[in-house]
Amino acid sequence: MTRRGAAVVPDLVARAREGEPAAVARLITLVEDASPLLREVMTALRPYAGHAHVLGITGAPGVGKSTSTNALVAAMRRAGKRVGVLAIDPSSPFSGGALLGDRVRMGDHALDRDVYIRSMGARGHLGGLAWSTPQAVRVLDAAGCDVVVVETVGVGQSEVEVAGLADTTLVLVAPGMGDGIQAAKAGILEIGDVYAVNKADREGAERTRRELRTMLSMGERSEGSWRAPVLPTVASTGDGIEELLAEVDRHAGWLADSGELARRRTARARREVEAIALAALRERWDADDQVGLDRLAGRVAAGELDPYGAADVLLDGR
Amino acid sequence: MTRRGAAVVPDLVARAREGEPAAVARLITLVEDASPLLREVMTALRPYAGHAHVLGITGAPGVGKSTSTNALVAAMRRAGKRVGVLAIDPSSPFSGGALLGDRVRMGDHALDRDVYIRSMGARGHLGGLAWSTPQAVRVLDAAGCDVVVVETVGVGQSEVEVAGLADTTLVLVAPGMGDGIQAAKAGILEIGDVYAVNKADREGAERTRRELRTMLSMGERSEGSWRAPVLPTVASTGDGIEELLAEVDRHAGWLADSGELARRRTARARREVEAIALAALRERWDADDQVGLDRLAGRVAAGELDPYGAADVLLDGR
Repeated sequence: MTRRGAAVVPDLVARAREGEPAAVARLITLVEDASPLLREVMTALRPYAGHAHVLGITGAPGVGKSTSTNALVAAMRRAGKRVGVLAIDPSSPFSGGALLGDRVRMGDHALDRDVYIRSMGARGHLGGLAWSTPQAVRVLDAAGCDVVVVETVGVGQSEVEVAGLADTTLVLVAPGMGDGIQAAKAGILEIGDVYAVNKADREGAERTRRELRTMLSMGERSEGSWRAPVLPTVASTGDGIEELLAEVDRHAGWLADSGELARRRTARARREVEAIALAALRERWDADDQVGLDRLAGRVAAGELDPYGAADVLLDGR
Repeated sequence: MTRRGAAVVPDLVARAREGEPAAVARLITLVEDASPLLREVMTALRPYAGHAHVLGITGAPGVGKSTSTNALVAAMRRAGKRVGVLAIDPSSPFSGGALLGDRVRMGDHALDRDVYIRSMGARGHLGGLAWSTPQAVRVLDAAGCDVVVVETVGVGQSEVEVAGLADTTLVLVAPGMGDGIQAAKAGILEIGDVYAVNKADREGAERTRRELRTMLSMGERSEGSWRAPVLPTVASTGDGIEELLAEVDRHAGWLADSGELARRRTARARREVEAIALAALRERWDADDQVGLDRLAGRVAAGELDPYGAADVLLDGR
């Protein structure tokens, strides 16, 4: 865009493609900041993205999400894969990772050149996650990651949201979480491709696993579609992690074979494009004195205009 | 719109204005269903809305939100006010109230003609709450409610969202919730106009109140602006509820006197108008084979087009 951008972006992209952590970090910061350079960045990254498997990991606080992510990343590294981790906290206005302390938490991998770890807060604006996550994933993807892990705190709406951000969604539960109403309310039954009952050495783990399996089977579709497995894990010791990763890989294979991968990625791209278009429209609406969204909103608030009439003016100037 | 609508809407609106619960319920169902009749409904309601004070009540699960709402509604009724209650669960795909059981829960008022109680699930689509809540509020407002209470489960993002939906936001906390990082992360320090430490008969309540007051004072702006009070309540016995209501009323007065009410309502209308405009755009985008959002998204997913280029085509056909 700007002359400065024209010089900076190709250099950053080239360095990121060589796996230079500082360049990757800088590109993700541009995503977080919704930088005007992003258009150029995404255009430059396009030819190099689309190869990584995007694994979403979610679950309620306390199920051992960090420990499980850490153990899974270690297993992926043993399999020779390059891994990127995005830890997303939709409730946090903070970004950049320092406040969330993930670099500390994921200390096992902090010095490993083939693991990128990054925390992102969700921006306050509409469509924040739908927009910024695919872009950050695209950066890590183009930088040569074989797997991009998107870890989110799973609370209500954001849990459902994360399902749309990944190719494969792994839902973690803890023993005792089998309470039917809780599970249904949290929507976890609809979003998981693979489930792990973590802390499986605790009492009630096997019962939780059976109950979850039963609840899932009630919602399962016809033959030929994916049947979500429920695995026992003890992330702190690594028990069950290799088996869990094998199921994640099996799902990745199923996605590709069934055509579901393209469907999911199209849905994700749709939300991303919509969010970008909406942001562009907002800029126009704010800049246009003739329509002036704030002026229209003021008239709606004052009872002079109904909201549909205001939307008409906004869209068509009438 | 349709001939049927042309006949049905004026009748429903007239009956709702007379306070007939079935008509109010039917109009809110139209809001939940994003009915095509809504445009006509909102146009018809416009002249009669804008009088109710909208009180948002939020807080983490377990703080006694239902009991507090119940006690506040009882106090408002004693003051002769007509009250509408919208209980919103942003994480629930369910709507209509039956599944949330609010009618059972709010049993004290179920037979009281001057209290409307309604549960709403958040719709899955972008901008769901920003759109449906102001419309449901408008229905209750035009039906003659003096106060519309919007109660939400407070978890992360939705907590911040609810702050934008109300004139006054009441945040409930429980003793022990004084942990600074928790409070900051949940964003509760930024959204409350009035705070109540409920279950104030429990150990640690006074300390939580002091800590919360201290944290709030750090973020307070210049003189003349509102200083959020922190009150002790025991909703189950009604202790402190009258005092809490007095602070809510005092805030309503401050809103009107300071000009802040118009500012907040304009911001709310802005989000509502945007959400309506976006939905209209989506319909156009989906209907237009020439641009075809799904086709564009497919090209982005396949790496043939970058998301900004797709947004350009969407907006300007190029």
